[in-house]
Amino acid sequence: MSAEKIPYKIYLEESEMPKAWYNLRADMKNKPAPLLNPATHEPMNAEELAGVFCDELIKQELDDTTPYFDIPEEIRNFYKMYRPSPLVRAYCLEEKLQTPAKIYYKFEGNNTSGSHKLNSAIAQAYYAKMQGLKGVTTETGAGQWGTALSMACSYFGLDCKVYMVKVSYEQKPFRREVMRTYGASVTPSPSTDTRVGRKILEEHPGTTGSLGCAISEAVEKATSTEGYRYVLGSVLNQVLLHQSVIGLETKAALDKYGVKPDIIIGCAGGGSNLGGLIAPFMGEKLRGEADYRIIAVEPASCPSFTRGKYAYDFCDTGMVCPLAKMYTLGSGFIPAPNHAGGLRYHGMSSTLSQLYADGLMEATGVPQTAVFEAAEQFARVEGILPAPESAHAIRVAIDEAMRCKETGEEKTIVFGLTGTGYFDMVAYEKFHDGKMEDYIPTDEELQASFDKLPKMD
Amino acid sequence: MSAEKIPYKIYLEESEMPKAWYNLRADMKNKPAPLLNPATHEPMNAEELAGVFCDELIKQELDDTTPYFDIPEEIRNFYKMYRPSPLVRAYCLEEKLQTPAKIYYKFEGNNTSGSHKLNSAIAQAYYAKMQGLKGVTTETGAGQWGTALSMACSYFGLDCKVYMVKVSYEQKPFRREVMRTYGASVTPSPSTDTRVGRKILEEHPGTTGSLGCAISEAVEKATSTEGYRYVLGSVLNQVLLHQSVIGLETKAALDKYGVKPDIIIGCAGGGSNLGGLIAPFMGEKLRGEADYRIIAVEPASCPSFTRGKYAYDFCDTGMVCPLAKMYTLGSGFIPAPNHAGGLRYHGMSSTLSQLYADGLMEATGVPQTAVFEAAEQFARVEGILPAPESAHAIRVAIDEAMRCKETGEEKTIVFGLTGTGYFDMVAYEKFHDGKMEDYIPTDEELQASFDKLPKMD
Repeated sequence: MSAEKIPYKIYLEESEMPKAWYNLRADMKNKPAPLLNPATHEPMNAEELAGVFCDELIKQELDDTTPYFDIPEEIRNFYKMYRPSPLVRAYCLEEKLQTPAKIYYKFEGNNTSGSHKLNSAIAQAYYAKMQGLKGVTTETGAGQWGTALSMACSYFGLDCKVYMVKVSYEQKPFRREVMRTYGASVTPSPSTDTRVGRKILEEHPGTTGSLGCAISEAVEKATSTEGYRYVLGSVLNQVLLHQSVIGLETKAALDKYGVKPDIIIGCAGGGSNLGGLIAPFMGEKLRGEADYRIIAVEPASCPSFTRGKYAYDFCDTGMVCPLAKMYTLGSGFIPAPNHAGGLRYHGMSSTLSQLYADGLMEATGVPQTAVFEAAEQFARVEGILPAPESAHAIRVAIDEAMRCKETGEEKTIVFGLTGTGYFDMVAYEKFHDGKMEDYIPTDEELQASFDKLPKMD
Repeated sequence: MSAEKIPYKIYLEESEMPKAWYNLRADMKNKPAPLLNPATHEPMNAEELAGVFCDELIKQELDDTTPYFDIPEEIRNFYKMYRPSPLVRAYCLEEKLQTPAKIYYKFEGNNTSGSHKLNSAIAQAYYAKMQGLKGVTTETGAGQWGTALSMACSYFGLDCKVYMVKVSYEQKPFRREVMRTYGASVTPSPSTDTRVGRKILEEHPGTTGSLGCAISEAVEKATSTEGYRYVLGSVLNQVLLHQSVIGLETKAALDKYGVKPDIIIGCAGGGSNLGGLIAPFMGEKLRGEADYRIIAVEPASCPSFTRGKYAYDFCDTGMVCPLAKMYTLGSGFIPAPNHAGGLRYHGMSSTLSQLYADGLMEATGVPQTAVFEAAEQFARVEGILPAPESAHAIRVAIDEAMRCKETGEEKTIVFGLTGTGYFDMVAYEKFHDGKMEDYIPTDEELQASFDKLPKMD
């Protein structure tokens, strides 16, 4: 089919939507390293994880050989409310850049959670419901994941307890209200709800909280309350599995028009979007069926791939979770306060880390003012106001398209547009007012953080 | 085709998207009353309007006989970036309500302006550009229309000056930042920019502004600045013409599956969405080809259809604009401060007013707590957090569906979901906290306002 025939937006029919998630690990020769028990340093088994996670999700977490998992019908029905997400041909951006490159983006923002997070939230809520649980707990920073989980729990009639970092709870009340609209209880963290929360409040009475502390509270609440489990929106293998729906839809839409991408670009915090977007493409690469350049984009202020260590580390600041082998900045690393672009997790999905270590993908770190410049440029020509997270991918997509302009190459670029920036206008305001600064951690700062990595011998 | 085959979301193909707007007035036996010159009370002609509006838009405004206007290709290309909007079958809502009714909604919120306003903004910006103008001016309250216009102007490289009611500018900074992202200049109104602004500031130094004052400033700025015209997001015939794309797409999507609605429901402030949604259906009704129940839903706190007078009135509080014959509460009417649901314009589109006067449609007023209850119920089952404006239509759609449950009738209900509520979380918070009250203006209040209607004899 000729390029002229490709519409601005490719929507799959309901019948073309994926019926199974793709488990990338099944095609990996070097499997991602297992989660370890923080006390014994032995691989965690299903039994040990059962107090924290839902049984079915643990199976998915530990299974690195089954290539496909059927998507249960209830989840597919929910997906039909907001999926398929459009694969958009960025005609206007191409025209604006005067590039011979062909640019596509998979837009995951057309739902109330405002991002791709809903893809895994609904799956995790479903399995919790199937297990007969009463509810789930989680933590949230700015609230994107918490919103997605609230929506999912509301749909299945599950209770949803969200620990929201106190400073966000107070200063970013809008997503909190979205969560309340969906019936979630939102507690500012640290709280007096949990032992760990009370301890922190005692030691630091004026603290405004941290993601690490909120995780610890959510885990404690789940493990100490009958009928509850803890759920997480990124990093884990199960999350990447659910998010593969992004890549499967993307590939199906491209295949429909006979388009083969040269470059696939995704932003990366914990890896939930990137891992999902690239899944089927990486699968082809692993099986030797096709080759693609795959680029992870991360903030220069939180550069786990590009400047982190590939090592076992804690997944949380409170050091209560299992150890994961990943590219990490150290579990105590916190990006500078002026960092506004999201993607602030200290580590990276074990699966993606292994692929990166094996040279199967590239990574690059970008400074935040350049990210917001790309965001604004994109918004003006493509009409969508992107989340700062998503704008990391836009930045590199534009850079690659401009490189094509220099060389005259007609490359096909696909990037993930994970969500919308409606709740990030404070960051945009900073950018408009010229008050946004770039921050790059020094080698000394990183080394000090690496020094606190767990000793593994 | 059987009902089982209807997907959750019906998307038209690009080739099925409307190529012309439908001008409802062409099929009206009783034409809407003309705009009058406020000084002479004579119908305004194109020449008189030329200082305020773009030439091509004036033609559209005054033409009540041409049934179709071709949509220029540039506008159709822009439409392709965010249209067709989905026509959604509300399977989950039907299931939740246990109603035999079949509910569909046309969702216009999947774009950064968050509403249908973009449909007319892009058309108005296009004609301004074609006329060789430098820019346009407008007013905005909460910022929905201003955002849409900013996006449209940015696309065509037009300057965009928005006068934003000062209290919104200060208390609702997020939409202001979205407008700035699109390069618009946003001025808090009243400002020292204009004669009328300076006058008001002198007389009321502490004023927080009003929509009426912002309109006056925008009109003054346009008429006193070389290469500028004034544009408006509702009420006018031209706006209803552009918004007919909503109804045309809705009808095309329903026709594709052989579905004939029984009831069509839309919220109504100035009438931009309602007039667009019902256009082709009302056309069939006017031509005697079909019959539909058509219901306008307005806030009980700003009830122009249900409690207003059908009379000539000023379109603005400053009384500088032409007179329009419409259902009006009087140009000085302002809803109670606790009103949070939008749709706060004192009058109603002349076209819709005439149709209502002729008994071709119904209208109903709903209290705001009932509106937010419907909004929350809808959000929880359909996944979309609606704008309070849109939730007026949801309220009545649910009421009608529940009536079907009582009678056992399998009616098909179509309603317009005009946009998303992401920037309305303060109102939602009020609702969650039980601090939202209903307000119904007294007959005495309305009479006092009616007493100030212009004397026409």
